[in-house]
Amino acid sequence: MIKVIFLGFGNVNSSLFNALYKTDKITVKQIYSRNYIKFISPFEHIPFTDDISKIEDADIYIIGIPDDAISSFSESLSFQNRLVVHTSGGAAMNVLSSKNRRGVFYPLQTFSKQRKVDFKNIPICIEAENSKDLELLQNLGKLISGNVVEISSEKRAKLHLAAVFVNNFVNHLYEIGSDILKGENLPFELLQPLIAETASKIESLSPEEAQTGPAKRNDKKTIEKHLHLLANSTHKKLYELFTEQLNQKYGKEL
Amino acid sequence: MIKVIFLGFGNVNSSLFNALYKTDKITVKQIYSRNYIKFISPFEHIPFTDDISKIEDADIYIIGIPDDAISSFSESLSFQNRLVVHTSGGAAMNVLSSKNRRGVFYPLQTFSKQRKVDFKNIPICIEAENSKDLELLQNLGKLISGNVVEISSEKRAKLHLAAVFVNNFVNHLYEIGSDILKGENLPFELLQPLIAETASKIESLSPEEAQTGPAKRNDKKTIEKHLHLLANSTHKKLYELFTEQLNQKYGKEL
Repeated sequence: MIKVIFLGFGNVNSSLFNALYKTDKITVKQIYSRNYIKFISPFEHIPFTDDISKIEDADIYIIGIPDDAISSFSESLSFQNRLVVHTSGGAAMNVLSSKNRRGVFYPLQTFSKQRKVDFKNIPICIEAENSKDLELLQNLGKLISGNVVEISSEKRAKLHLAAVFVNNFVNHLYEIGSDILKGENLPFELLQPLIAETASKIESLSPEEAQTGPAKRNDKKTIEKHLHLLANSTHKKLYELFTEQLNQKYGKEL
Repeated sequence: MIKVIFLGFGNVNSSLFNALYKTDKITVKQIYSRNYIKFISPFEHIPFTDDISKIEDADIYIIGIPDDAISSFSESLSFQNRLVVHTSGGAAMNVLSSKNRRGVFYPLQTFSKQRKVDFKNIPICIEAENSKDLELLQNLGKLISGNVVEISSEKRAKLHLAAVFVNNFVNHLYEIGSDILKGENLPFELLQPLIAETASKIESLSPEEAQTGPAKRNDKKTIEKHLHLLANSTHKKLYELFTEQLNQKYGKEL
């Protein structure tokens, strides 16, 4: 039985809690959060504390708080030499205080309070200072995911950067699509089959093979027309930059 | 029985052909293409011609060729007063020669030779000059899709523009993600669950509700770190522009 304590209870830790709670190989011994949380059935018996000095004994402490706060929070823990991991893609392992054994347990996914995600396929990126802790994190990860990978802080930083492009920036393009349709009183749902196919295409084709469209073809007439239709100057800037980059990339191949 | 002739046989028309061929309410009377096409079983008996003067009689002619070529090609057809439609999102209905009855039959999706798509949920955007032709296009569309919508050329141009953002530009962001991972010898598959969840999120949340990440939070430390990690100057430019726009959009709300 692995005894786990969650420190912080935002989107990532509450999603991890939901996934780990179901397995019978771990005990959620306690949840700590600065803010009081009222747990509802079936979780009303999970011990909760908002007092950092009352955090109990466990095999793994999982910190799920904003990146900027990890360092000072981990320094403020009153115990030593235990395994303390954070769940951040962007923070290095060594932002954690060295008074405890350090590690990372980063589920590469986007979490929202409103959505339950299935952890089975989510890559869990782990890192630890010694092989025994790494093995423990591996075992913990395998309880919820079929894809546990050891990744260094340096590589994880790049992975997180790539994630920002394919998640946050992609979602912003969805917003722009939505804005353009709103202007015409057209429902966003019109674009959803296209969005779904664009995402599933790259499970069987590389993004290069999947690329189509006026910028790739260097279809100047359509590009001109689109720039003319774009009333929003910031959307226009993005259109120009994407078109320029796609032209540069595919121009030679045509 | 609706008699259909396909004029041109690229990604869109061959996908439409595959979908329409299965229904028992239409006959594919002929396929015309400038380039000879060898049809294999079960399509070896579909009449084919590469001679524009030998195009037969039909209820609907579906043009699937590059936007720039639609106008002159439709002018070169030897018959008159028949229903001729194009399948383009970006071209207005009136680029078609007025010697025939004009219409549009635009399936809003991305098509690749390598992938079969299910038309059931694909919006089919139709337009015609008279109500009888519109009804015929409606009936044709309903044979393959549950989502046939009448949309004017003006609105369709905006819809196509939005489609470029959520398809071509999104796919370019996938390429950048893939490039960043290649540089670290990490497999692109690591990002696929994130890509899939990002796309399915907006089926239940609006893009605004779904947005997360350092740019939205205005997490300057992470943004600085990412800009430092980006070796490719064109990727950097995109990162800066997205971050600026997300800051502008969400900055006030924080």
